[in-house]
Amino acid sequence: MPPIALQSIKSRYLGGHDRVVTGLEVCEREVAAGGGPRRLDMNGTYSVGQIYVTEYRLAAPRYPWPVLLWHGGGMTGAQWESTPDGRTGWLWRLLQAGFDVFVSDAPERGRASWAMAPQLYAEPPVFRAKEEAWEVFRIGPAGGYHADAARCRVFGGQQFPVQHFDGFARQFVPRWLGHEAMAMRAYQVLLEHTGPCLVVGHSQGGGYATQLAQQCPGLVRAVVAIEPTGVPADCLLAGVPHLAVWGDHFDQSPLWTRYRQQAEHYWQQLARRGGQARTLDLPAQQIRGNSHFCMADHNSDDIADLVSTWLADQVPPIPSRHKEIAT
Amino acid sequence: MPPIALQSIKSRYLGGHDRVVTGLEVCEREVAAGGGPRRLDMNGTYSVGQIYVTEYRLAAPRYPWPVLLWHGGGMTGAQWESTPDGRTGWLWRLLQAGFDVFVSDAPERGRASWAMAPQLYAEPPVFRAKEEAWEVFRIGPAGGYHADAARCRVFGGQQFPVQHFDGFARQFVPRWLGHEAMAMRAYQVLLEHTGPCLVVGHSQGGGYATQLAQQCPGLVRAVVAIEPTGVPADCLLAGVPHLAVWGDHFDQSPLWTRYRQQAEHYWQQLARRGGQARTLDLPAQQIRGNSHFCMADHNSDDIADLVSTWLADQVPPIPSRHKEIAT
Repeated sequence: MPPIALQSIKSRYLGGHDRVVTGLEVCEREVAAGGGPRRLDMNGTYSVGQIYVTEYRLAAPRYPWPVLLWHGGGMTGAQWESTPDGRTGWLWRLLQAGFDVFVSDAPERGRASWAMAPQLYAEPPVFRAKEEAWEVFRIGPAGGYHADAARCRVFGGQQFPVQHFDGFARQFVPRWLGHEAMAMRAYQVLLEHTGPCLVVGHSQGGGYATQLAQQCPGLVRAVVAIEPTGVPADCLLAGVPHLAVWGDHFDQSPLWTRYRQQAEHYWQQLARRGGQARTLDLPAQQIRGNSHFCMADHNSDDIADLVSTWLADQVPPIPSRHKEIAT
Repeated sequence: MPPIALQSIKSRYLGGHDRVVTGLEVCEREVAAGGGPRRLDMNGTYSVGQIYVTEYRLAAPRYPWPVLLWHGGGMTGAQWESTPDGRTGWLWRLLQAGFDVFVSDAPERGRASWAMAPQLYAEPPVFRAKEEAWEVFRIGPAGGYHADAARCRVFGGQQFPVQHFDGFARQFVPRWLGHEAMAMRAYQVLLEHTGPCLVVGHSQGGGYATQLAQQCPGLVRAVVAIEPTGVPADCLLAGVPHLAVWGDHFDQSPLWTRYRQQAEHYWQQLARRGGQARTLDLPAQQIRGNSHFCMADHNSDDIADLVSTWLADQVPPIPSRHKEIAT
């Protein structure tokens, strides 16, 4: 694997707003082991709703716009960094392809942090057990997960590295229902900070990408939505090129059949308004067995290459130095 | 800033164990906007206590052992990536110095995820308000934080970029008291995965580094503890070189005076047993005004250089190709 020359690695926190908590009991507790009790007062000012992003900038990017990688629900940016079987992820593959890459954690997920309930968040969080993930991520049928890997039931030709499913499940983070407006505000601040960019969003993150392409068409220059959920009900603007990517085994998931119909209805609206609304239906291309997480599957690099080839077509290349001198 | 050539960027989840949750009510909720209600069943199997790590490997490292960066309490690995005023952090500086660098999030923090309470964690979390951070991080006196930046009271000669304190506070994540054993089990798995390494730990992470140097002296080859808390009560092994780093304004913090005395007592034990127990007392070196977060302060690169120079002295360099051929 040839090395990649980076100009910088930086992370940022963007968006969010201050909220003040009062009325909590103040106590004395030992916080540092052996350090003795100290005053513990959690009343005060908190930041709520910020987003976290790591910016990987190439020494010599081939394209003027970065790729933003937006994770799915109950996940973090870690899903783009490595595959469950320990290979480099889409982050590395897109850097190799010549794009600057920005990997974010949405508000309440991962490094973006989350806030006190019920003072700052109204509801308790939702957790995803392995049993649900097995079904919802289309690894195998409902009830197919078993702690004994030999007894798990897996869809035929599965591309997900099933022997690493338990390791993969360590990535799951809690999420809150009804926080879409908070997340979209933060993603919008991220876009305003970044400027023109290409957004690759997975699942919930794919839905946010389609929403933000409506809200900020000058900033989102192309959307790749990997099995998106939560797309807009109505298409008002169709100038931003869209590519949807769909894996396999939809016929065995009534939930995903419904979610996909919702997304395809939106793609049809985009096309009717004259937009570029492409679909990469992997099984229709003889690429079979992909789960809900094609960036985690055995053929992740192949799918990344299909995505980055499409992205490259949406974006002007940076003129080479030679050409700049010639003109 | 010259580019850095990386061989790979990968992240991993290590450690943790499975726990099963039963007896939760199953409901129907809309999870994806517009997707209609679906069955939401949180009963099942969860991973608890895993650690997250991003491994940045150089194309041509100068040293055979990586540097592990362990964050402080209520923080994540993000504290090493950038400074609050938007410069590159110690991650970049240590890569520039020729070390592979591994940045982790401890269990329950950031991308490592956290678990359901009271089913899997006994207690509710502890949150850090800006008011407490202002005092505990020695930005200024107790009560010195104010939402209006102009009214904040700051210690004289402060190196922390105070105008970016509100942005910095967006990094804070909840933590749980009494989870030290869980964290140390995960850090031990990280060490066993990594092999021989150099650990740079901040605050709580510095305390964990001193603890793990006792438990895994063959793996932890040197410890840099930036204002450590929670050091061992007793020193049993003294073979691992230690460097403590202390900032300024201890005379204005009874809490930090106490924590520092505890750490210095341990450093004295290390020295009495014949260990290398160095201290970099920054004000004694005429480097004044550092907060509890010297990796976030204006002079962060200078402190990183002092640390990496000391680390380089603890580790054999990789023989250059020229020398290898010559011998």
